Amino acid sequence: MEGVDHLAHERSKAQFDVDQMKVVWVGSRHALQVSDRIARLVASDPVLRKDNRTMMTRKELFKNTLRKAAHGWKRINELRLSGVSPSGRSCFVDLLLFSLLLLSLLLLFLYFSISFFICFNNANYATIVTEEEASWFRHYVDQPAYTDLHWGMFVPFIKGSGTEEQQKKWLPLAYKLQIIGCYAQTELGHGSNVQGLETTATFDPKTDEFVLNSPTLTSSKWWPGGLGKAATHAVAFARLITDGKDHGVNGFIVQLRSLDDHLPLPGITVGDIGMKFGNGAYNSMDNGVLRFDNVRIPRDQMLMRVAQVTREGKYVQSNVPRQLLYGTMVFVRQTIVADASTALSRAVCIATRYSAVRRQFGSENGGVETQVIDYKTQQSRLFPLLASAYAFRFVGEWLKWLYTDVTQKLQANDFSTLPEVHACTAGLKSLTTSATADAIEECRKLCGGHGYLSNSGLPELFAVYVPACTYEGDNVVLLLQVARFLMKTVSQLPSGKKPVGTTSYMGRAEHLIQCRCNVQKVEDWLKPSVILEAFEARAIRMSIACAQDLSKFSNQEEGFAELSSNLAEAAVAHCQLIVVSKFIEKLQQDIPGKGVKEQLQNLCNIYALYIIHKNLGDFLSTGSITAKQGSLANDQLRSLYSKLRPNAIALVDAFNYTDHYLGSVLGRYDGNVYPNLYAEAWKDPLNESVVPDGYREYIQPLLKNQLRNARL
Amino acid sequence: MEGVDHLAHERSKAQFDVDQMKVVWVGSRHALQVSDRIARLVASDPVLRKDNRTMMTRKELFKNTLRKAAHGWKRINELRLSGVSPSGRSCFVDLLLFSLLLLSLLLLFLYFSISFFICFNNANYATIVTEEEASWFRHYVDQPAYTDLHWGMFVPFIKGSGTEEQQKKWLPLAYKLQIIGCYAQTELGHGSNVQGLETTATFDPKTDEFVLNSPTLTSSKWWPGGLGKAATHAVAFARLITDGKDHGVNGFIVQLRSLDDHLPLPGITVGDIGMKFGNGAYNSMDNGVLRFDNVRIPRDQMLMRVAQVTREGKYVQSNVPRQLLYGTMVFVRQTIVADASTALSRAVCIATRYSAVRRQFGSENGGVETQVIDYKTQQSRLFPLLASAYAFRFVGEWLKWLYTDVTQKLQANDFSTLPEVHACTAGLKSLTTSATADAIEECRKLCGGHGYLSNSGLPELFAVYVPACTYEGDNVVLLLQVARFLMKTVSQLPSGKKPVGTTSYMGRAEHLIQCRCNVQKVEDWLKPSVILEAFEARAIRMSIACAQDLSKFSNQEEGFAELSSNLAEAAVAHCQLIVVSKFIEKLQQDIPGKGVKEQLQNLCNIYALYIIHKNLGDFLSTGSITAKQGSLANDQLRSLYSKLRPNAIALVDAFNYTDHYLGSVLGRYDGNVYPNLYAEAWKDPLNESVVPDGYREYIQPLLKNQLRNARL
Repeated sequence: MEGVDHLAHERSKAQFDVDQMKVVWVGSRHALQVSDRIARLVASDPVLRKDNRTMMTRKELFKNTLRKAAHGWKRINELRLSGVSPSGRSCFVDLLLFSLLLLSLLLLFLYFSISFFICFNNANYATIVTEEEASWFRHYVDQPAYTDLHWGMFVPFIKGSGTEEQQKKWLPLAYKLQIIGCYAQTELGHGSNVQGLETTATFDPKTDEFVLNSPTLTSSKWWPGGLGKAATHAVAFARLITDGKDHGVNGFIVQLRSLDDHLPLPGITVGDIGMKFGNGAYNSMDNGVLRFDNVRIPRDQMLMRVAQVTREGKYVQSNVPRQLLYGTMVFVRQTIVADASTALSRAVCIATRYSAVRRQFGSENGGVETQVIDYKTQQSRLFPLLASAYAFRFVGEWLKWLYTDVTQKLQANDFSTLPEVHACTAGLKSLTTSATADAIEECRKLCGGHGYLSNSGLPELFAVYVPACTYEGDNVVLLLQVARFLMKTVSQLPSGKKPVGTTSYMGRAEHLIQCRCNVQKVEDWLKPSVILEAFEARAIRMSIACAQDLSKFSNQEEGFAELSSNLAEAAVAHCQLIVVSKFIEKLQQDIPGKGVKEQLQNLCNIYALYIIHKNLGDFLSTGSITAKQGSLANDQLRSLYSKLRPNAIALVDAFNYTDHYLGSVLGRYDGNVYPNLYAEAWKDPLNESVVPDGYREYIQPLLKNQLRNARL
Repeated sequence: MEGVDHLAHERSKAQFDVDQMKVVWVGSRHALQVSDRIARLVASDPVLRKDNRTMMTRKELFKNTLRKAAHGWKRINELRLSGVSPSGRSCFVDLLLFSLLLLSLLLLFLYFSISFFICFNNANYATIVTEEEASWFRHYVDQPAYTDLHWGMFVPFIKGSGTEEQQKKWLPLAYKLQIIGCYAQTELGHGSNVQGLETTATFDPKTDEFVLNSPTLTSSKWWPGGLGKAATHAVAFARLITDGKDHGVNGFIVQLRSLDDHLPLPGITVGDIGMKFGNGAYNSMDNGVLRFDNVRIPRDQMLMRVAQVTREGKYVQSNVPRQLLYGTMVFVRQTIVADASTALSRAVCIATRYSAVRRQFGSENGGVETQVIDYKTQQSRLFPLLASAYAFRFVGEWLKWLYTDVTQKLQANDFSTLPEVHACTAGLKSLTTSATADAIEECRKLCGGHGYLSNSGLPELFAVYVPACTYEGDNVVLLLQVARFLMKTVSQLPSGKKPVGTTSYMGRAEHLIQCRCNVQKVEDWLKPSVILEAFEARAIRMSIACAQDLSKFSNQEEGFAELSSNLAEAAVAHCQLIVVSKFIEKLQQDIPGKGVKEQLQNLCNIYALYIIHKNLGDFLSTGSITAKQGSLANDQLRSLYSKLRPNAIALVDAFNYTDHYLGSVLGRYDGNVYPNLYAEAWKDPLNESVVPDGYREYIQPLLKNQLRNARL
């Protein structure tokens, strides 16, 4: 049956132009062509295979990661993926500066960072590839590695926070990988609260050096990726102390290991922090621990673009606008939202295909059994996740535009929209990552028992994804930031200040507070304006209710703390409105291709009505819709599932994932699941011998009744 | 700081008698004493250490499991845990018969099954221990092994389904572990739908044998625990074919491996199915694959208590009442509910203690930072899970009683309450396992970044727990069974038939349909009668709404399929009512100990009001409460959190878990988290060498710019 497409019948049912949908998903026909080519290139490279990853020991996995990183670097150079492209480097690296405060747990995430293969000028070593191609390459290699932090954090931070002189000294070394850098910020005792870091860098005017120390156990650096085993250098964050005075947290370039033999330098204690969630997954990364014992570095290794220490030990701050910080955050968070839609779409692709392959029950009258995808319970769990993948895709696309927009404004010294942009990106990061983490596990459950096998791909996808809910701002902490902004916006409404961007609906507060939803029959729930107004009414009413509750407290901060749970819910309502409204906006664009727009409309409605159903309490308690209307929404949802059903396989095909990238026996393109599950089983190390290791010591004595005499 | 109790201050705040709460949690003072003793015994045994488990390769882990199994067997015999107890064996094994249809995925679960160490009569080998002690022993060993299936499925099934002659032949061998058995039911293509199994056992009258075959790939046995590497025998399920006629699925005893050298017998293909979710976790179990190629067994190896094949090949069914099946299910499912409360309580214990240890932010005015357990957002996520652990504990306790009750009724040939009991146990299995799986992951997130480390214990706890949502009835399939029963009950209301047991509230349908919730101020939500009526009103109104919607379909089965998602929600509402009502009933008992009852009341209210908040849409759309009352419930919830806060640590201490059993650096009893996290890091295999394996091949060439020439 090899070569047969077991899902061909499913594919023939599609009512839309799948190729055109692929273009919509990826963003452009050009992007589709490039990504498709790179995906095949990665998939065909034997060094980059992933199917054996979950069976490796930690040491094997790490060595394999080192191999892939070196191999990728070599391949890119050899292949010259698309020839010379001198303008390949984006401006984002310049904006990654001042990431001190908010990039804290980013160290965990940037899989084969965007910057991994960016062009550079040393003709001796590197060739030039387009950043777009390199980005797709790292995307499809799909294995966290130390290089993520070197290119994604170390290099950009030096570019952003170093003086020109410092950049001139360090960047060429980093670009040529003559040094490997990491980003050592988080400590054992401090993650979110960066201002609470305890590592010290004390200026010694006698020698013109800083002396780095880890004064407490909790000041040990903890989590930085690449630190554990690979990095030779770090950007380390420490409290700057001059003349006995604490000037707060600053960044320093510190060499950790010898460039000759890779041994830690004197005063440096460094190692890996141990196993993390799952097989494979993030265990390919050497997240590390680091302690300083009177480690001395020259004064010029403090990154001095923002603040300097003079030869005399005087601390001087520069006047770089701190708002540039937010530009970086917008960039990082739009990446995370894009990653969420990717991770979610992978899980949904696996679960959807397998749901069409798997049959169970329903053959009582003879004939074949029912495909599980035909059960309404399966549809009501799976299809909203498929819709969410598309919804997050488009809100991510919009965030990308927003980043460009805010970058231009920052360059023009216009900081006016920053608070709104910041709130919106923080909220969307929180919303999409939480939803995606839950959805991956739901997709695993939708695959029944076989979803529990590592080779379903879903366990590893879950394990590698879940830290997204914690890093780069804990999701709950972020929601409270959104809520704080919403409360401020509400409080300014009476003054007539016009809310901007994603909060502009609040300018229609008077109407939204008293409007009534117009739905009288199921079809009414297909009107974008009706959906939008329901979401707007719910969001603003929840915000205003919170504001009113807050006003009863004499101490606002106490009130905020006490009501924080309600405030987080109001923030979620606001963010879900953004997702829905951006999906609706997307549909107002010209979308070519037979049936493509119809499918997207269907997905948009499913997403919106699913959110209404899941959060019915909000919609009803705010009076945004009535119970009867809620029930009609649910009825409409069911009929939308039926409309989606014939297109389900084609809608996940549109993600255009190779079997290599999906890494799932259940999600194979050809649907030929069972023979491959069977074949995979025999590859487990336990099957290397017919009789298992331990038989003679621990089974045979039992069977022979010799246990009493045996030594265990 | 070793030996210091970092949580002593927290413990001093407790407003209740913790020791008495331990008694309540475990069930009796005697049980507390026994469990406490066994827990320490297991914890102090070096062979039974668990802390290195997640770092082992699959082969090491499996060998370690074989060792633990053999060691446990030996230890129990040596220790004679509490002397002779001739009545140690429970009657449940007799009730495990006919598990053919519904125990399908049970093979995955029974960790060191209850029957592991049950007494037997061969004085030559075994000593007698109480089943209670043995049960605690396997509980604390906490590592899935082949023995689970031998004692938990193979032996009971032979006892239940074998004739007296068969029992006489096979049980002594099994009791002495002269054979190791497994339970080979599930196939690659069939899990839930047992009647769809494809393996065949064809009677050959010439030789008086059955010939077993795996006619298709999907007929390969797949998942049975212990099958992969350990078992010598299986109870294998196959379609019985005599004289060309298919008599459906029956069980057969088949030898798989030689008792001399453990090699598979001719015609048998057997192996492990590969890695499963997570590190450690269920990978200690050899879930297996099995194919038959004309494997011949004597006719007397068909288990013939229920049905026989005569020498002439005639198929004859016995008249054993099939209802006995349900008794088994009640037992198995009450075990699963009890396990849910255990798994949940472990996760909650870890997250609660760590939330009191971890501090972040709030030191702006000098002084120490705020414990994260003091944040309302943390409380609103954590405390309902703590309350759920207690709630599930008590509903599990009640189910244990229900099992005894139904057993007595079955013995008296009274099958009248079985449908209600079946629905209620199916629903509670579904509700508690889904909630627990989600809660473990939520607890992990509540531990922030460090929860992602394997040594937090939470990743493995999650990975080993999640199959509970799939095995022994997929949770959604089970909810639909409950819904079917509810629809039947509703349809019979007009006839005046009195609903029994957990559905007896439906007898008050007339009142519950039109009653109005009496809450006017926050305190009203503390009245058990008010809470109960709100839950009853919501549940019955959802059921009746479903029944009305169903009645609009001309074809009831079509309607059921179309509305299955709504029906599942109605089933959840019914099950949540059961949990709440059993908690309230528990509080009506006499509960000694200072402050114990008050704490339980608080937890009960938190559980109930949390469910209302989470499912507000149900309560509002059915008109069971008003929006204002929903808001008051939420206000009350917040003040209940404040009441719980000082007791939080003591309430998790009451679970009485050893550090060995918890297996979490974050959840340590003494709260001494950071030094131990630090110490654990260095044990990772990656830290065995300072310079990592792969440095010379893959890092040094990069640093030295030698990549071009290097062979990767």
